[in-house]
Amino acid sequence: MSSISIVGAYNTKFGNRVKKNRETGEVSDLASIYDLMLEAGRGALTDAGVEAAEIGGVWVGSCAPGIFANQEHIAAFAAEIDPVGLRYKRMTRCEDACASGSVALYDALYAVESGRIDAALVLGVEKMNLLDTAGVTHALATCSFWPEEGAAGMTFPALFAEYAKGYRDHYGVDGELLARMLASVSALCYRNGLRNPLAHFGAGGPSDKLGLVTAEAVLGLPPDKNPMIADPLRLHDCSLVTDGAAGLVIVGPGHAAARRGRSVRIAGIGHAAERLAISRRDNMHELKAGKAAARQAFAEAGIGPDDIDIAEVHDCFTINQILCTEALGLSADGRAGYDYMDGRFGPDDDASINLSGGLKAKGHPVGATGVSMHALLYKQLVGEPIGMAPTRVPEVAVTLNVGGSAVTNCVSVLRREG
Amino acid sequence: MSSISIVGAYNTKFGNRVKKNRETGEVSDLASIYDLMLEAGRGALTDAGVEAAEIGGVWVGSCAPGIFANQEHIAAFAAEIDPVGLRYKRMTRCEDACASGSVALYDALYAVESGRIDAALVLGVEKMNLLDTAGVTHALATCSFWPEEGAAGMTFPALFAEYAKGYRDHYGVDGELLARMLASVSALCYRNGLRNPLAHFGAGGPSDKLGLVTAEAVLGLPPDKNPMIADPLRLHDCSLVTDGAAGLVIVGPGHAAARRGRSVRIAGIGHAAERLAISRRDNMHELKAGKAAARQAFAEAGIGPDDIDIAEVHDCFTINQILCTEALGLSADGRAGYDYMDGRFGPDDDASINLSGGLKAKGHPVGATGVSMHALLYKQLVGEPIGMAPTRVPEVAVTLNVGGSAVTNCVSVLRREG
Repeated sequence: MSSISIVGAYNTKFGNRVKKNRETGEVSDLASIYDLMLEAGRGALTDAGVEAAEIGGVWVGSCAPGIFANQEHIAAFAAEIDPVGLRYKRMTRCEDACASGSVALYDALYAVESGRIDAALVLGVEKMNLLDTAGVTHALATCSFWPEEGAAGMTFPALFAEYAKGYRDHYGVDGELLARMLASVSALCYRNGLRNPLAHFGAGGPSDKLGLVTAEAVLGLPPDKNPMIADPLRLHDCSLVTDGAAGLVIVGPGHAAARRGRSVRIAGIGHAAERLAISRRDNMHELKAGKAAARQAFAEAGIGPDDIDIAEVHDCFTINQILCTEALGLSADGRAGYDYMDGRFGPDDDASINLSGGLKAKGHPVGATGVSMHALLYKQLVGEPIGMAPTRVPEVAVTLNVGGSAVTNCVSVLRREG
Repeated sequence: MSSISIVGAYNTKFGNRVKKNRETGEVSDLASIYDLMLEAGRGALTDAGVEAAEIGGVWVGSCAPGIFANQEHIAAFAAEIDPVGLRYKRMTRCEDACASGSVALYDALYAVESGRIDAALVLGVEKMNLLDTAGVTHALATCSFWPEEGAAGMTFPALFAEYAKGYRDHYGVDGELLARMLASVSALCYRNGLRNPLAHFGAGGPSDKLGLVTAEAVLGLPPDKNPMIADPLRLHDCSLVTDGAAGLVIVGPGHAAARRGRSVRIAGIGHAAERLAISRRDNMHELKAGKAAARQAFAEAGIGPDDIDIAEVHDCFTINQILCTEALGLSADGRAGYDYMDGRFGPDDDASINLSGGLKAKGHPVGATGVSMHALLYKQLVGEPIGMAPTRVPEVAVTLNVGGSAVTNCVSVLRREG
């Protein structure tokens, strides 16, 4: 078990935080990438009760800020969170596509474990909505294996459609049944998101107005409201293009903040990469690397799937929530779709999944997502849930954060302390 | 002193590795970002005599591969170096602009120090020449503080011109004298580059053909051959737009490879970030954060400037080589320009600087540069120099790798073992 703890966290409002002038088409930025970083960084430090001067370094997860917001070298901006306390500290950006936030956390954790620093600030940030749909699609496509995939027009819905088809064919699920499984996932996430005040699709939002809280409601949408994006994935199988940031403060065992009673141990981590090109894999019905990451994290933490009270998993597409659920062992292989259809994984379940609304409803600011998963589970474990809480008081929480076409797989086990 | 050692290294040929069809303008890639990574990764493993299966993770420094080569999530491609040995390992990209290579090394080092892995492969890669000059300028400008700098048309030559003017004004150096100081730096780097078979501007290249091996020759160029880019910096004060990659294998103390006698200790590291916006600094005649990084690294290694036999420093612009030389204490403050004019820092000196040719002649594939610095110094310390060797057998080597407008500053002290 690692000796590192999370002692504070913060999550900004997630959403489309630009304003478009309908006449001129001009875009005004209502919450810039800089605003989001400052809010998340200051929020996490305040939540932890840790001074900026105590922070030995800042690790920033961000996927493609140079393309989305013309800002590479974004980590160095973190000094502005507190120019007195943070200037001259080490600042590092980490990127593994949509798992950038988790890998930033892991590199920060190694630095604290090495004994070189006592505390680290971990941020995740993405500002996606300055670009139009074509621009966002291009930016994300650079996270695929470009020569074979992005350059060939194979977008991310198409890549995950390969997993949907692989799952369907491997388990002999017909198209109608698969659609119901996927709709059960999106309905759960939309339902949960209504209770999360930070969600992109929250109360009063599009999914609320459309009443998409049951699989029937999702399946009943007319085709123009739920068009096919990449067969068999429809619009409501896809996560959102979101602006947002999140922050965590982590400390080593000797740090005072770890003894103040709002401390969550990073009990185990796992990080495993699949081959980048989808053409070089042979396992399109499961997350082999996700399972490897889960084994690694569970072994370190000394837990099994039955110990998990609450999880945030990577529903970039509904099919991936099914694959993640199986990778964590919360469903048997080939059974997660049925489990979601049966109404499993809600707040009353032994294990609750994506109470935040997940990437589907909370939103998916790609580089921020991994940090946000940890931030919201931290808040759950210290009894300060943002959004819905599970019926049982949670002790063990797990993340499964995926980058690219299920290439980077990061699993963390978090355990309430004290 | 860290317990981590470099046990193998590799550096690809640096250069403009595309072919442009003069009639159609079409660009053919002669060494893709993928080719470069595979060559550097396999080369480093072979040099180290370490099997891919022994590697616990790969850290990849790359500055803006999504903009330069449409490929974010580049770290995951590293599995292709050895799909049997590396699949399912942890792969992480690190980015801090032109210091991406050093921060990748440092994050890998923390992971080995944490005890989680025994060995890591560290790569640096950049493929810059697929873009035209405007494209490259834009990509690099995203590494400045975009709202105030890049968006305002303040390119990197203009940002480092601010340091040149700050230095000139602070030390009361007139324009002609400053030009001679800067030309002395470029002449040294061009001279050294002629001996480096991997250099972008090597033997038979442009600097060789123009005979730019003395300050006089540089100063004697007609203005059209050495135009002002951003006063007072001219074309021959700027480093090159280069394609290339480099690799390192690092191991912990128990690893067999560290006992085979080709082992170089990473004796100390320092990593300090200046504020991202140049408008928020007050020290435009020195690298304050560079000095902080040097203090940190020297303290850990237990050395002082007098112990340095050989250094690779970040001459993205000639003025920065002067600032780096002072930051490392190899010249007194305000004296480096005079020292270069006096012919210091060649192969016969107590301390040799940029024997590789530096970024000016070896070339500057931005995300690869930090790894390349370590790779070439490793080769020097194990007695297998690529290019010119110093007259004295070197024992202590130092890097100063800078990202952005002297924002990220990374200093490593390397010491020959055994």
